[in-house]
Amino acid sequence: MSNVFAFGVGLANTNASGEVLDCLFPQPLLNPNAELADALAKFSAGTSTVDPVEVAAANAACNGQLVPAALLEADKPLTVVNLAADQEIADTAQAYLKLHLLSHRLTLPNTLNLDGIFAYLPNLAWTNVGPIEPAALTDTLITARARGEHIEVMSIDKFPKMVNYVMPTGVRIADASRIRLGAYLGEGTTVMHEGFCNFNAGAIGPNMVEGRISQGVIIDAGTDLGGSASTQGTLSGGGEIVLSLGKNCLVGANAGTGIPLGDRCTIEAGLYITAGTVVTVVDEDGKEVRKVKARELAGGSDMLFIRNSVTGQVVCRSNRKAIALNEALHAHN
Amino acid sequence: MSNVFAFGVGLANTNASGEVLDCLFPQPLLNPNAELADALAKFSAGTSTVDPVEVAAANAACNGQLVPAALLEADKPLTVVNLAADQEIADTAQAYLKLHLLSHRLTLPNTLNLDGIFAYLPNLAWTNVGPIEPAALTDTLITARARGEHIEVMSIDKFPKMVNYVMPTGVRIADASRIRLGAYLGEGTTVMHEGFCNFNAGAIGPNMVEGRISQGVIIDAGTDLGGSASTQGTLSGGGEIVLSLGKNCLVGANAGTGIPLGDRCTIEAGLYITAGTVVTVVDEDGKEVRKVKARELAGGSDMLFIRNSVTGQVVCRSNRKAIALNEALHAHN
Amino acid sequence: MSNVFAFGVGLANTNASGEVLDCLFPQPLLNPNAELADALAKFSAGTSTVDPVEVAAANAACNGQLVPAALLEADKPLTVVNLAADQEIADTAQAYLKLHLLSHRLTLPNTLNLDGIFAYLPNLAWTNVGPIEPAALTDTLITARARGEHIEVMSIDKFPKMVNYVMPTGVRIADASRIRLGAYLGEGTTVMHEGFCNFNAGAIGPNMVEGRISQGVIIDAGTDLGGSASTQGTLSGGGEIVLSLGKNCLVGANAGTGIPLGDRCTIEAGLYITAGTVVTVVDEDGKEVRKVKARELAGGSDMLFIRNSVTGQVVCRSNRKAIALNEALHAHN
Repeated sequence: MSNVFAFGVGLANTNASGEVLDCLFPQPLLNPNAELADALAKFSAGTSTVDPVEVAAANAACNGQLVPAALLEADKPLTVVNLAADQEIADTAQAYLKLHLLSHRLTLPNTLNLDGIFAYLPNLAWTNVGPIEPAALTDTLITARARGEHIEVMSIDKFPKMVNYVMPTGVRIADASRIRLGAYLGEGTTVMHEGFCNFNAGAIGPNMVEGRISQGVIIDAGTDLGGSASTQGTLSGGGEIVLSLGKNCLVGANAGTGIPLGDRCTIEAGLYITAGTVVTVVDEDGKEVRKVKARELAGGSDMLFIRNSVTGQVVCRSNRKAIALNEALHAHN
Repeated sequence: MSNVFAFGVGLANTNASGEVLDCLFPQPLLNPNAELADALAKFSAGTSTVDPVEVAAANAACNGQLVPAALLEADKPLTVVNLAADQEIADTAQAYLKLHLLSHRLTLPNTLNLDGIFAYLPNLAWTNVGPIEPAALTDTLITARARGEHIEVMSIDKFPKMVNYVMPTGVRIADASRIRLGAYLGEGTTVMHEGFCNFNAGAIGPNMVEGRISQGVIIDAGTDLGGSASTQGTLSGGGEIVLSLGKNCLVGANAGTGIPLGDRCTIEAGLYITAGTVVTVVDEDGKEVRKVKARELAGGSDMLFIRNSVTGQVVCRSNRKAIALNEALHAHN
Repeated sequence: MSNVFAFGVGLANTNASGEVLDCLFPQPLLNPNAELADALAKFSAGTSTVDPVEVAAANAACNGQLVPAALLEADKPLTVVNLAADQEIADTAQAYLKLHLLSHRLTLPNTLNLDGIFAYLPNLAWTNVGPIEPAALTDTLITARARGEHIEVMSIDKFPKMVNYVMPTGVRIADASRIRLGAYLGEGTTVMHEGFCNFNAGAIGPNMVEGRISQGVIIDAGTDLGGSASTQGTLSGGGEIVLSLGKNCLVGANAGTGIPLGDRCTIEAGLYITAGTVVTVVDEDGKEVRKVKARELAGGSDMLFIRNSVTGQVVCRSNRKAIALNEALHAHN
């Protein structure tokens, strides 16, 4: 560990008052080694604006580890964020740096201090000519139209889409508007048109994502979310459980889960398991073992959830070994 | 009430034959006061085109209440719509004015006469260079490509996205393509990526919208639609009931309703209530009160709908007080 | 049948190494008649690049059947694909030609040899300035921003959106990003915002599509997919059954099917039928006829699927005539 927690040189868009609207950090650093950290000591702590010439000198001194050359072509000051520790976010540039750390896969969801992020992300109109403050949008639309030009508005949001800032290797994203900056998409992740990933959430990769990964949710390697599958997040509806899915799970199309799952679990298409669902657990012979609320099965592995289409009962099929393991797990709760 | 029902000065895009394709009305008026209505008497009834200089004079005479200054910079005639009453739509500009009235929150969904709207909204290719008639699109694509340029087509539709025309205050819209012009989004509405709102439909605000608000549907303050939640509209599938949801309801993720709900109702995640669903109503002690088709519960308050995961039965949990109220309500039907 | 299977003159985007990224074929030909096929004999078999002047001459010789005039304005060589038979795809241009054949409605889904298509479709960043290779995207973003310009990334995918290439007559597509090139959308198809259609899949038309048409799936005339309705495809989850829906079916909102259906079938909103669902078949009097796995009902007509909301049982309501027909059908399996 060095004495630098995170560092980035960015290029910001600002409003007429000079306030930062957004910031692109093409080469963010997390916990740089001691040698590199020493080179960063020349930059002020916190957030500052620095002439590209100065950045170029520092960049040359550490073999281009700070910034790609193209950024130095900017004809305005660059935004430097230099954080000694993972403290509460103090301005917009710092919020953007942390979102970049996640999308650059430098850290996993739920590992960063994101306190204050909503306050420091301005709500913006994201357009084909870049971000515009909502209060200024109507005039921009009118002026463009009066000139015979067209402004296309993509969203009105605090978070921009990831791929306007970060292009992770080895991913496909069929509809880029559904992946927010701050999403973590691991190598080998395919997000289909119905897939979604919020900030501070993600797929370890490889994964097939045709459903929604809510804020705080992580799905591990080999797990698939079917079309429109739902995972309850912590921002709305999901209460306090941080939800994750282990390896090689399948949540079927139009299904959903309000409980975390271990490895090799399946929820059949169309079935939604909430924490309060009463589940009939059966063993490999179909014999009922017990009835429990789904929250008591949270984190268990090797579970198959279906709704019996003759009795209407929600059933968890498992095997004696998995049941015993899961019970032992929960005995220590 | 003045003798003017609605008025707007707009800037239209037209095709080669001069036909209106769409029209931006930045400052529409509904039921202007008598003084302002007098000032509008100089404009022809119905739809007309007027030189910007003339509009500027009228605008100056009433302190800029007609149009923002930026629109007067247009180097072509402006489109003026001056309606004495809420009659059937007679042309494209009038259709656009009515859609603007809704999105500007000047009137609620289901209050305007929208007869004829489909006939007067041309189906267009909405592109990064503005609207193009579908029959002309292929040539536009080819010509652009032959020049090394790119045309991006956003949709082929009769309705454009709202925020290319109207930016209501205090809203977030994560994917602007899912909110049609004519949607009513009240202050404090957040529409997430999976949210949708049709024209002549809306959220009173504040609301969290992660589901679909179909044509004609209104959700009241404090009501949330979970991810991919469905509300049946009147255009398809929903029959003749105009659906609304009262205050502080929650329709869970992947759930849906085909009946209107009063206040403080909840439908659990994954459960779809149609008008014909047979519902077992139970009181606060879980005791069965009666079995009814869901349509008989339409408009009731304080109802919680779940599917019992042991019996498969769709249950409405309520309390004696709410049940009595709801029964009294329906006794008068 | 002529000795030409498919032919197209296209305009390609290429990378710095001259490799084809994508290709627009505005006027593809399938099985041209003998006279036209003779005229095509002057073009090399397979894929070649040809000077626009040469193409213009050939085009004039056959009355403009090869290419619209606008394409001949290109100041670079055109890409000609001349296929004698429907063989495995051998390069990117051929992959694009086959996708165009589908979207131009020259052939139905599941009729073309698409072997090799994934290998020959490069994964690209689709932007407001055209396709960019993912490895080059970050530099493009930085350079644009350093100049005060904006690049908007729409998707990172092997397949582009259809309407940037093909505009079929008589369709509406509320969100163009959800229809891939290679989709077949017949006359009279309306795809709402929640609708989706993959390549090699489609709607015969007229249809209302508010749900997802997976790869390989075809829905016939008059069939509606409700909001977020799911059809299991062959690429993921659906196994080996190629799924189709006959005429005048309705799959309700948030419902889904894993089995093919014949004509006039309905699945109620919120119900997902998988191949393994045990279904209780009842006759017109509500009398149980038998219990079967849904896969045994595959392809049957006149079936209504609901989940009984009192017993939780998945029921297929049919009539004696339809049941007899379906049983006869399956007796021959």
